[in-house]
Amino acid sequence: MSGPREVAVVGGGLTPFGVRGVTWAELAQEAGEVLFRTVPNLRAADVDSLFVGAAEPERFAFQSHVAPLVAEQMGLAPHRIVQRTELACASGQSAIRSAYAAIRAGLSDIAVAVGVEKMNIPDMAEANSAMACVLDRPWDAAHGLTAPPFFAMVAQRHMLEHGTTDEQLAAVSQKNHRFANANPVAQFYEKKFDREKLLRLPLVAPPLRLGDCSSMTDGAGAVVLAAEDRVSEFTDTPAWIRGSGQYSDFHNLANMGSLTQWSGLVRASREALRSARIGPGDLDFAELHDCFTISEIIEYEAIGFCGPGEGGSFVADGRSDLGGDVVVNPRGGLLGCGHPLGATGIAQAVEVVDQFAHRVDPARQVPDPEWAMVHNLSGSANVHSVMVYERGG
Amino acid sequence: MSGPREVAVVGGGLTPFGVRGVTWAELAQEAGEVLFRTVPNLRAADVDSLFVGAAEPERFAFQSHVAPLVAEQMGLAPHRIVQRTELACASGQSAIRSAYAAIRAGLSDIAVAVGVEKMNIPDMAEANSAMACVLDRPWDAAHGLTAPPFFAMVAQRHMLEHGTTDEQLAAVSQKNHRFANANPVAQFYEKKFDREKLLRLPLVAPPLRLGDCSSMTDGAGAVVLAAEDRVSEFTDTPAWIRGSGQYSDFHNLANMGSLTQWSGLVRASREALRSARIGPGDLDFAELHDCFTISEIIEYEAIGFCGPGEGGSFVADGRSDLGGDVVVNPRGGLLGCGHPLGATGIAQAVEVVDQFAHRVDPARQVPDPEWAMVHNLSGSANVHSVMVYERGG
Repeated sequence: MSGPREVAVVGGGLTPFGVRGVTWAELAQEAGEVLFRTVPNLRAADVDSLFVGAAEPERFAFQSHVAPLVAEQMGLAPHRIVQRTELACASGQSAIRSAYAAIRAGLSDIAVAVGVEKMNIPDMAEANSAMACVLDRPWDAAHGLTAPPFFAMVAQRHMLEHGTTDEQLAAVSQKNHRFANANPVAQFYEKKFDREKLLRLPLVAPPLRLGDCSSMTDGAGAVVLAAEDRVSEFTDTPAWIRGSGQYSDFHNLANMGSLTQWSGLVRASREALRSARIGPGDLDFAELHDCFTISEIIEYEAIGFCGPGEGGSFVADGRSDLGGDVVVNPRGGLLGCGHPLGATGIAQAVEVVDQFAHRVDPARQVPDPEWAMVHNLSGSANVHSVMVYERGG
Repeated sequence: MSGPREVAVVGGGLTPFGVRGVTWAELAQEAGEVLFRTVPNLRAADVDSLFVGAAEPERFAFQSHVAPLVAEQMGLAPHRIVQRTELACASGQSAIRSAYAAIRAGLSDIAVAVGVEKMNIPDMAEANSAMACVLDRPWDAAHGLTAPPFFAMVAQRHMLEHGTTDEQLAAVSQKNHRFANANPVAQFYEKKFDREKLLRLPLVAPPLRLGDCSSMTDGAGAVVLAAEDRVSEFTDTPAWIRGSGQYSDFHNLANMGSLTQWSGLVRASREALRSARIGPGDLDFAELHDCFTISEIIEYEAIGFCGPGEGGSFVADGRSDLGGDVVVNPRGGLLGCGHPLGATGIAQAVEVVDQFAHRVDPARQVPDPEWAMVHNLSGSANVHSVMVYERGG
């Protein structure tokens, strides 16, 4: 065995996202069916390792030890590495990073990373409790500080500091919902949202309205990663993993510094770009974690697409749209596709693969993309996870 | 960056195991205190990655997204990789394997793997439900097939097929409790169990008595892993990771083959030994997953310490004790130390480090150990995880 090997995502697929009348296990099975259909050269016996990204099956589905469950549902018998990775809203990317490390280390040759989440359950109070325990439960969430009020606080502060407006928030939502209308697996496929409609939706936590928030979504997906000498068996346009960065800043909100300058993302994106040997200006598109509209605006600033405080005008001026500086969330984002926690990171990687292969709807196809970034935040934006991909072939 | 690097566990420590009057987060903090005390050359700023092994904080502690919580409690700010790994009872080893892969891949230089579990909670019905959802909940556990009845069924079958006796089961428990009496962090430290007492304890699920079952335990621990060029900063007797194997057989019990021949462990242990280039006879000691006495007996057979059906006499004849063929569970095992799910795999690795450094109580010190195996099963013995260590220096 020689040096660390290069690793690529060579294919993958998704179940439809939405409110799905199926169980957690059935979603995993569907992900397997889609995977083997979209990657026809993949044989189950060649998959030596399985990494399952899932945030909270213990509460949403009352099932733990889900890695062997997913293996069984997909017809796999991993004989090198099998595990679940959890990093709340970034669980899917975490599974991909684990597969990447395993192959790069020579411990796996062909690995599958799966994301599954079933959030719409009969007892939605239990589902909301599950979401609350993603934050610091006894100190923050128990006092009502769950995700929507936290990001509302962030938005209020960004408005105060930089004059960001409701219209600029709505511009993020409008763009991402427009892209989702060109993505058949999106939860909000064929649902139209114009700027005026978005600004009239009910307030969830001021200033955030319904259209500013990603939803509780069921969905699953899977990608295949391969070592460099196996890549050509599967695709002519591999998505090579060229950079990786993560940063964990704090847990209890009392230890967060600025609400609006996400230093963890500054560090994680710099590390990912440094390891890929490119700068933010080299990226053709980016899948950013738009759990709320304000998140995407702050992410532009932290990654360096624009200066501090300029995120609102960046989106309003079309600079994150097709024809702009960098296309952000051509998939439709979490806002347009829904956010089945563990599946989101997998869906973003599938978008990279499909964009590189030029096989998405022309209304969201980025012209000739060569470099892409994928970002997830998790919890109260206290952990940031970033990967950078280069198109091969 | 050159080829895959060798990786060693260079130090680690444990909190006391038992029924602890502290919270999940406090256990994590304690693990940090112990870690920095037992590895004095470790500086927080040098730790670039954190892997947290925890089985079910979502149910035991109503807290998810625990990786950043552990980072905060330990005073760490991981800037390369941060994640939780879950594989039920093997979650701790899963964290170590992830750290191993990351360092070997060149994605991390110094990583901490932490295991935390707080199982004794005010609502023990919730704790028992949490344990039930480790198995296939809707199809197996919901009908009463939780861990004790499952392993009781396995024991009954082993008795039928091979004539294994209650006394042989008790011999496992007696040996492991005797070792635990020489381990100050063990839950059953200074608790004496002779053969006669064990055979009079209440039946949990026939033929398994209280002394045949590991317990619901609170505990935490942490180990440091380092890349080969950093190892000498920390220790003269590194525990080099030389082999790794895992196998996922099935999930639903209907898909299990033989109850008593654990083919997944046959495969995982062979793979781990193959990658280490040794055979089972080369091992000086082994930390095997004795969640129930019958497990350890079957594990002897699957790993190849003895022939099929010979596990009962293997232990009764003292062949897995000091002075025998291979010392099994000198730490005291899960039976003697308790089984805080995510912390168990960390505790086993700490035992390897301490045995290699000759710093355990003489009553459990293996003479001049060079090779060690660590094994965890998880769920209904449907996943087996194995690592092989060589003493350096």
